[in-house]
Amino acid sequence: MSDETYMKLALEYAEKGCGWVNPNPMVGAVVVKDGRVIGTGWHRRYGELHAERNALASCTEPPQGATLYVTLEPCCHYGKTPPCTDAILESGIHRVVVGSVDPNPLVAGKGIRILRQRGIEVAEGVLGDACTGINEVFFHFIRTRMPYVVMKYAMTMDGKIATCSGQSKWITGETARRRTQEDRHRYSGIMVGIGTVLTDDPLLTCRLPDGRNPVRIVCDSRLRTPLNAQIVRITGEAPTILVTCSRDEALAYPYRDAGCEVLTLPAKDGHVDLRALMTALGKKGIDSVLLEGGGALNWSALQSGIVNKVQAYVAPKLFGGINAKSPVAGMGVESPEQAFRLASPQVTRLGEDILLESEVLSCSQES
Amino acid sequence: MSDETYMKLALEYAEKGCGWVNPNPMVGAVVVKDGRVIGTGWHRRYGELHAERNALASCTEPPQGATLYVTLEPCCHYGKTPPCTDAILESGIHRVVVGSVDPNPLVAGKGIRILRQRGIEVAEGVLGDACTGINEVFFHFIRTRMPYVVMKYAMTMDGKIATCSGQSKWITGETARRRTQEDRHRYSGIMVGIGTVLTDDPLLTCRLPDGRNPVRIVCDSRLRTPLNAQIVRITGEAPTILVTCSRDEALAYPYRDAGCEVLTLPAKDGHVDLRALMTALGKKGIDSVLLEGGGALNWSALQSGIVNKVQAYVAPKLFGGINAKSPVAGMGVESPEQAFRLASPQVTRLGEDILLESEVLSCSQES
Repeated sequence: MSDETYMKLALEYAEKGCGWVNPNPMVGAVVVKDGRVIGTGWHRRYGELHAERNALASCTEPPQGATLYVTLEPCCHYGKTPPCTDAILESGIHRVVVGSVDPNPLVAGKGIRILRQRGIEVAEGVLGDACTGINEVFFHFIRTRMPYVVMKYAMTMDGKIATCSGQSKWITGETARRRTQEDRHRYSGIMVGIGTVLTDDPLLTCRLPDGRNPVRIVCDSRLRTPLNAQIVRITGEAPTILVTCSRDEALAYPYRDAGCEVLTLPAKDGHVDLRALMTALGKKGIDSVLLEGGGALNWSALQSGIVNKVQAYVAPKLFGGINAKSPVAGMGVESPEQAFRLASPQVTRLGEDILLESEVLSCSQES
Repeated sequence: MSDETYMKLALEYAEKGCGWVNPNPMVGAVVVKDGRVIGTGWHRRYGELHAERNALASCTEPPQGATLYVTLEPCCHYGKTPPCTDAILESGIHRVVVGSVDPNPLVAGKGIRILRQRGIEVAEGVLGDACTGINEVFFHFIRTRMPYVVMKYAMTMDGKIATCSGQSKWITGETARRRTQEDRHRYSGIMVGIGTVLTDDPLLTCRLPDGRNPVRIVCDSRLRTPLNAQIVRITGEAPTILVTCSRDEALAYPYRDAGCEVLTLPAKDGHVDLRALMTALGKKGIDSVLLEGGGALNWSALQSGIVNKVQAYVAPKLFGGINAKSPVAGMGVESPEQAFRLASPQVTRLGEDILLESEVLSCSQES
């Protein structure tokens, strides 16, 4: 069995932390001795032990002389838990194979250096792309302290997110819709505009049996969210943040009384300043936001340069309709050269639907 | 080497007839003797010899006792050329391997039966799906006598075919645009609406060095095409058919004088009756039409039930714009259940762009 094989196993363990560890990274670890896997572990939940310690604790025989495979460079600082490098040094591990190097400035190669200085053989970058790939959220958040924003929409093959009469249930099939529920579990927050609240009265929770609910964020510059909206009434399941430009405390009071947070931010072009909002959410430890906006909010988000990834679910059907809505509205760009450029999409089949996922290359027209 | 390997070779030869043989099928043939390919051929051009005769004529040694691989069942009737079954029987070929069975009612299994009756061993259906796949146009045309219609458009990942100011040059990259030129060569006709002529003044020819130009068809119910439009001025390169509901001969005269055909058809809902048009084009031997319409014509075409396939080129960029045009306009359907249903798309990467191709499953709302 090669280093890659064990690292792949470590990656599988890492994924088990999905949705539970934010804003920490997902990390998996495997201990191998004489060609046998003697321990496995992963970072299970924010604030709890790191993957390395869990793997070492699970060992079915003493790890002296064994190899530790870990998807991310071991930490060497005191955070919520003591440094993993200490645990590795104490364990008698002989060799450490690392997936991606931690971009966290507090770690950034230091963990690897400490291990080497203490005589441990370290290999880096094994399945590096895959190990980095699962933590795109963490790597973004640690660098910018702003959430990683995923703009998600479902459209027909003629680019419609609703029929001419505004109906949108359903565009995609069950497999695709299940995937969007998984993403509600994966990402820390979910954001919509007031238009979506008024039209659809959504709950915005994760419907998976063991899912975690994202923090619900509504851009509502004038606080028009109805007090009997599901997002206000049902706050026991998930926190709700109403983001407004209004400083009218009397207007905010009943929402607060109902258990919602009301966040007042400066306006920009008459709407909530989305960059200021992302900074505020970042301070709350929200490392990622699934943007399920309508066309207007999607356009504002693109314009503000806060969107990191586009997820377009494309259903094999056609609605037609000169007045049917499409995913991004607003003013739009004048000339094709001004388009927001995306990376060539990753294509995933979900039942009969297709998911196109692209990173946003040019984030802002304003820069 | 297996039957599949030789059939794959025969398919490669068949493809060489692409764009030149319509409304005939593309057919390729390979003669194999003692494990050596001793002859190859394909149907090169409408009216000329069939693939089997070309392959037999090319043999580098006598074909007695050899196996003939042919992508489509050999014909057994007198058309423009004598029956291929005769040529096979005369050649001393011992065994014939057939890709797909000819759906032409004049052939339909008869060719195979004749060969078997005369003692030749025949295997059918080798790479049958692939052999049928290259001739979707022929199989449709032979059954319906109406052209196979491919609705083609290029859109951004947010479903726009132009920016808010109407600019659409360019949405896709060079690889994708080259592919659309290949399709202009592949299909017999190309159709646009008067709106496209007035806005873009397109030439609608095939820009490939050795390409064949499609017949240009403009849906122009009131004959508003400018006399100085490229499609009228430049008729030496490709025929132009203006399709109108107007019976005003004086209006039609200058177009005819310029070398265009003016085809008068009954109106339907104030526009050219597209089913009547397809019947008329079928009578002219036009077996396929590339529909490069704008949103209005695309919607009418879908409504009329004439569209067989949708080709959506999706570029990794976003235009935004509440007023930016999308691929299918018109009234549109009211509820998602009324959507035009497509088959799960075939996905092809073309440079950074993605081509989604789907057959239309429910062709008409009116039926």
